[in-house]
Amino acid sequence: MIITVPLRERAYNIEIENGLLQTFDTSFLPHEIALLSNQIVAPLYAAPLAQRLRAAGHRVLEFAAPEGEGAKTLEWTSRAYDALAEFGFGRSGAVVAVGGGVVGDWAGFVAATWMRGVDLVQIPTTLLACVDSAVGGKTGVNHARAKNLIGAFHQPKRVLIDPQCLQTLPLRELRAGLAEVVKYGVIADANFFAWLEDNIEKALKLEPSAIEHIIARSCQIKAQIVGEDERESDASGARATLNYGHTFGHATEATSGYGKVLHGEAISIGMTTAAHLAKLLNLCDDADALIARQTRLLERIGLPTRSPRDTAFETLWDAMVLDKKSRDGVVNFILPVRLGEVRLVRDVKKDDVRAALET
Amino acid sequence: MIITVPLRERAYNIEIENGLLQTFDTSFLPHEIALLSNQIVAPLYAAPLAQRLRAAGHRVLEFAAPEGEGAKTLEWTSRAYDALAEFGFGRSGAVVAVGGGVVGDWAGFVAATWMRGVDLVQIPTTLLACVDSAVGGKTGVNHARAKNLIGAFHQPKRVLIDPQCLQTLPLRELRAGLAEVVKYGVIADANFFAWLEDNIEKALKLEPSAIEHIIARSCQIKAQIVGEDERESDASGARATLNYGHTFGHATEATSGYGKVLHGEAISIGMTTAAHLAKLLNLCDDADALIARQTRLLERIGLPTRSPRDTAFETLWDAMVLDKKSRDGVVNFILPVRLGEVRLVRDVKKDDVRAALET
Repeated sequence: MIITVPLRERAYNIEIENGLLQTFDTSFLPHEIALLSNQIVAPLYAAPLAQRLRAAGHRVLEFAAPEGEGAKTLEWTSRAYDALAEFGFGRSGAVVAVGGGVVGDWAGFVAATWMRGVDLVQIPTTLLACVDSAVGGKTGVNHARAKNLIGAFHQPKRVLIDPQCLQTLPLRELRAGLAEVVKYGVIADANFFAWLEDNIEKALKLEPSAIEHIIARSCQIKAQIVGEDERESDASGARATLNYGHTFGHATEATSGYGKVLHGEAISIGMTTAAHLAKLLNLCDDADALIARQTRLLERIGLPTRSPRDTAFETLWDAMVLDKKSRDGVVNFILPVRLGEVRLVRDVKKDDVRAALET
Repeated sequence: MIITVPLRERAYNIEIENGLLQTFDTSFLPHEIALLSNQIVAPLYAAPLAQRLRAAGHRVLEFAAPEGEGAKTLEWTSRAYDALAEFGFGRSGAVVAVGGGVVGDWAGFVAATWMRGVDLVQIPTTLLACVDSAVGGKTGVNHARAKNLIGAFHQPKRVLIDPQCLQTLPLRELRAGLAEVVKYGVIADANFFAWLEDNIEKALKLEPSAIEHIIARSCQIKAQIVGEDERESDASGARATLNYGHTFGHATEATSGYGKVLHGEAISIGMTTAAHLAKLLNLCDDADALIARQTRLLERIGLPTRSPRDTAFETLWDAMVLDKKSRDGVVNFILPVRLGEVRLVRDVKKDDVRAALET
């Protein structure tokens, strides 16, 4: 299946197919390739791909960061630059990111900033990356003070998704990826949400047809939203709706130390908080049912819906204020008005967030 | 005088006026301002501007890097990020770069990559920055292996040029800036070149009308070229002509250690080398006259036209191969075909470059 991200001169295709990693036609790639991955993914997927590319005559650099969120730093960006310089990697080469969201964001940022931007191909190998981070052109690394503070918009030339890669994904990572999938249902498609309620066990068992449907529908929703508002240039624009669960989610990640709580786990907590906040502010039709269905689905997936108890509210609030989505000290939330529709709420009061957390 | 850089939705104005730094209307700026400069420029221009902005109600962060090319590194980029995070600098703020080419490139890169890009205003305070680096959206920092390897395209929202700032510029810096001015004559405007031959002493004495003409004409030429080919996306495109003198110039800078040879000095050497190479390859009409006039004008300005003798040719060649303008190990040069016109020559042979250097 091919899904196009409609961005005029920057339009590109997402290809989804079982076994694609072994079969895709490499002829669209330039001569020089920098395969960026991590130490877990490299032997599984990057090394065989490097072999295939070299056999086809490409000059290939392989560079692997350590596993986990620690790779998504300026330090590992700098190490990647060193490797590219050592290799003599030129402006006409392509960076191919093979891995999960961390690898995609970090490698994407390297591609965005090497020689003022070189081509990027995303090969996501986690569910989270397949349905979210590999699509849409957001790249970046974390700052000690907040997530993704350092970054650039840099659309890939192509996204290649091989759902078979998910066979090697730890269950916890699979669950975390499903948080973003549930998000698409809540923000844009009540029918998809209901389908997830009916089929979530199949997804957790990695049944191919269920997984492919989940990836395809998620990518379709994201591609459409990104096509409407590529750079999230207006905080009230379409793309901001993708941040449902992220205001509180990012704060949870930042205050617990990146990597301890997975991004998808934090988003699950953030969506739950947002739904309670929507009820508290009387913004949501039939809020109790939405909260119940969303919480139930997240719990069936095996995701946390409650914030870790050991972080003080003030610390969380400070992290929300520093978040990119905040402007001039004002904290904004994306909140559900009904299943399948969300809206931006600006300048949410500290006491209301505290109250939503305590319900 | 106002010159527009014609880039459709990214179009912006260059304002040139004596005293502009004290008089410009600050109301176009957002509430939060990060004034990035260096330790030399900060007390002269950034601090008074900060005072004026604070009096107008802005929230202002002042951050100064050390003087010189050493600021143009990933390390100082990282320190700027730390200062922005500490300040709580949001997505709606603007970075204002006050300084020369190093400050503009570094601060521009910070603006390009903070929260995936915030607004940038360039206030160049050296001739080189006024006529070249502040206009056109190239931002970046150096890698130990080559200049500007790390960077992004990020157009400013406005460029404010106050020629009075040049009164505090060391003579060596003024001379270096004039190298890029001579470049505009050679690549695009033989009449301007002749005007420079007639008026160069006035420029060196900073006579206001001469300096204003030099800045305005240089900005006009650069604005037009950038408007035709914003991203130098094709190596044969219009923007590549701006790299006249830069293939060899960058190699000279990289191999002598950034900052020892000023950029403009390296470009002067690079233009001289390029002119000799054009003669050697029989590409240039009346090559002897062009070489003589260009060399004479550069020498009258007080610029070097010969490479430092202490660098081995092999080292220079390796640096040329690694340069961004090189592709797949092939070294390209912009060479003059006559005064006012240049062309791209691909895959220049090592022996020819060596021979051009030895003439």
